[in-house]
Amino acid sequence: MRLSRYFLPILKENPREAEIVSHRLMLRAGMIRQQGQGSFTMLPIGKRVMDKVCQIIREEQNRAGALEILMPTIQSAELWRESGRYDDYGKEMLRIKDRQDRELLYGPTNEEMVTEIFRSYVKSYKDLPLNLYHIQWKFRDEVRPRFGVMRGREFLMKDAYSFDLNYEGAKAAYNRMFVAYLRTFTRMGLKAIPMRADTGPIGGDLSHEFIILAETGESQVFCDREFLDLEVPGASTDFGNDAQIAHIVKEWTTPYAATDEMHDEAAWDKIPADDRLSARGIEVGHIFHFGEKYSKPMGAKVQGPDGKEHNVSMGSYGIGPTRLIAAIIEASHDDAGIIWPESVAPFDIALINMKVGDHECDSICERLYDAFQAAGKDVLYDDTDQRAGGKFATADLIGLPWQVIVGPRGAAAGEVEIKNRRTGERETVSLAVALERFGAAE
Amino acid sequence: MRLSRYFLPILKENPREAEIVSHRLMLRAGMIRQQGQGSFTMLPIGKRVMDKVCQIIREEQNRAGALEILMPTIQSAELWRESGRYDDYGKEMLRIKDRQDRELLYGPTNEEMVTEIFRSYVKSYKDLPLNLYHIQWKFRDEVRPRFGVMRGREFLMKDAYSFDLNYEGAKAAYNRMFVAYLRTFTRMGLKAIPMRADTGPIGGDLSHEFIILAETGESQVFCDREFLDLEVPGASTDFGNDAQIAHIVKEWTTPYAATDEMHDEAAWDKIPADDRLSARGIEVGHIFHFGEKYSKPMGAKVQGPDGKEHNVSMGSYGIGPTRLIAAIIEASHDDAGIIWPESVAPFDIALINMKVGDHECDSICERLYDAFQAAGKDVLYDDTDQRAGGKFATADLIGLPWQVIVGPRGAAAGEVEIKNRRTGERETVSLAVALERFGAAE
Repeated sequence: MRLSRYFLPILKENPREAEIVSHRLMLRAGMIRQQGQGSFTMLPIGKRVMDKVCQIIREEQNRAGALEILMPTIQSAELWRESGRYDDYGKEMLRIKDRQDRELLYGPTNEEMVTEIFRSYVKSYKDLPLNLYHIQWKFRDEVRPRFGVMRGREFLMKDAYSFDLNYEGAKAAYNRMFVAYLRTFTRMGLKAIPMRADTGPIGGDLSHEFIILAETGESQVFCDREFLDLEVPGASTDFGNDAQIAHIVKEWTTPYAATDEMHDEAAWDKIPADDRLSARGIEVGHIFHFGEKYSKPMGAKVQGPDGKEHNVSMGSYGIGPTRLIAAIIEASHDDAGIIWPESVAPFDIALINMKVGDHECDSICERLYDAFQAAGKDVLYDDTDQRAGGKFATADLIGLPWQVIVGPRGAAAGEVEIKNRRTGERETVSLAVALERFGAAE
Repeated sequence: MRLSRYFLPILKENPREAEIVSHRLMLRAGMIRQQGQGSFTMLPIGKRVMDKVCQIIREEQNRAGALEILMPTIQSAELWRESGRYDDYGKEMLRIKDRQDRELLYGPTNEEMVTEIFRSYVKSYKDLPLNLYHIQWKFRDEVRPRFGVMRGREFLMKDAYSFDLNYEGAKAAYNRMFVAYLRTFTRMGLKAIPMRADTGPIGGDLSHEFIILAETGESQVFCDREFLDLEVPGASTDFGNDAQIAHIVKEWTTPYAATDEMHDEAAWDKIPADDRLSARGIEVGHIFHFGEKYSKPMGAKVQGPDGKEHNVSMGSYGIGPTRLIAAIIEASHDDAGIIWPESVAPFDIALINMKVGDHECDSICERLYDAFQAAGKDVLYDDTDQRAGGKFATADLIGLPWQVIVGPRGAAAGEVEIKNRRTGERETVSLAVALERFGAAE
């Protein structure tokens, strides 16, 4: 993408309304624009990050056997009366009336709707296990939305729902999502620690939050340092092997870890002082097992191998991709701006032409631009007439993993500079080396 | 994907509520489930088609220079008061109040919001042309939603918005979208005919609908048969060349074409009788030039080369991907079910194991399944214990372009059958030929 034809509205000043660094950087880097209380447009560069985040989530959901669907945002109140949650949910639910005065609502979550889908089609244990997920906008009318996309009212959520014959099956489904979450966050360059959690309005008796550690975290968390060394399961993990998956979950739930609400001082005191890690954390995922909470009132039953009808045992599993973008920035930035992990960077390479109009600079840039793209790299080519200092500042701010800098002196000598955004290391190399570095043919 | 682990809730009976063939087939093929009046879940196979349709739209928007963003579904009433449309829009607009009694609405379209984004950042003609699009859910509270996703209340829409200094620039932007639309529909196997149209509540003075011909179409259309032979511009079309793009538009707007509302009997009578094509049509896209209709009241101005401020000249460009899925089915089906064009098929190949449990059948199927997938094909492998007749009926109903059928007699001889869903042609071939046919290595 040529920056001259792109829409990247960089802000020079720190926006006053932004209280936390991710909100500030997302506004400054032209990723988002606020449209209302807790409501944001993803601008082009923000949309690119969102797509990459969603794609990783999707790949790991699919790998774990979940199937993607897409449910509507608007739901009928009737459905929520079946589960008994319509009156319980309170003012966070955005309630709507249509032109015929029917009561609707903007879905804050989808347990009821997906249970309705399930009961309409699935009648036998032979069709289980089943896990359906979607990535869809949700609305929760928070009293005080803030911190940008970290706590919005309209936000994107990946929510998966598992259906099993009994607790044993449901626990295996829970475990698969647990492991999928470990993999998902790791692929985004995050260290996420699963912590026992309260189940809140979703209900149920087993729940983990996945928390990443960041100084600006919203809540106090406590865990054993052992977590920092645990190995995250690889891509070859066999999600069909319940015992192997259960083993991984055991490993990741044995050391002490708790959010503030679940914290147990007695257990904490037993950990050697050097191993105690008390820090701020950001919730990036939340999984629940709630058994028959929805299947029973809503009549979602299957026939078991015993010929009898059983209420299915369910769980739900959420990740907020928009919030996750902010969390990644909280965990990975410096004074100059964002530092994207390669897997979610909006572009791989910032190609910086220091002197547009200089014949050598222009021709080398054009050549690199074509070659890098042909090698499958996403390149943002700064071909604008801004001065070099401004270009460097922009590249640092938007945080692409690599900068390839083409200036008149180097160009005359057939050389360019490569800068690693994370380490700050700079290296002057020949054109041939620059091409090779990014897998491009000469 | 193994069908035994997939969620494909086929209906054996024709659902009574479905009045048109696409609605009937989408329900029967397990693509959608109705969740409320004019509101549908895309089930796994429907979601796959939707993704492919959206990806083609996206590629052609990008090719034409549009940039993808994502605006929220909920908008503030305040914004719509600025343009004067809040009171005009009528009961089709879903109006909402939040917990603080602020007036919100579920966006039926996004002219106001995108104009607000534009005016916040863009100040100079040097940043033009600009075209921003998103693919997002819309809600229009139709009195009588019907025909499945063809006329829903909550529906997906790709809406693009162009901003230019003056009419000349805006017309060039309009032309680029015009040509992008021709390419988009062609890639989905559709013949779309652009027709001068009424501008309705969007406003403006220049507008085309893109109509595909289908017996079950919602409206009467009239055009010159010449359209059927016009060549659609190729992938190498230079969208940077305004003159070339204008030439293509001229070619596609010169022969007579009109919807019922715009029909001109006098002009029609001048066409030789043999060339007159009077048919039913389905609108699949709609583009508008409306100049300063929103930029003027909302103060979206840029400084021109003359140093003066100019209200930008705008257009908007819509395609409904969910409706488009139904339109493709209306245009491509037979008595047995859907016939997907390859570009939007949910899977490329239905691999049918006629006798699960037979050693030869199972091992050949496993081998083909792995090899086809390694060759980049999406394969739906019917490994269920249903009888062969049911498997054939399902494969025909869901309409994948190719069926590869493995039965015990053929398997013993190292042969499989390949069926083309569109032509019905069947061919018995060796395993080696079957592999080669789909680009797979032995």
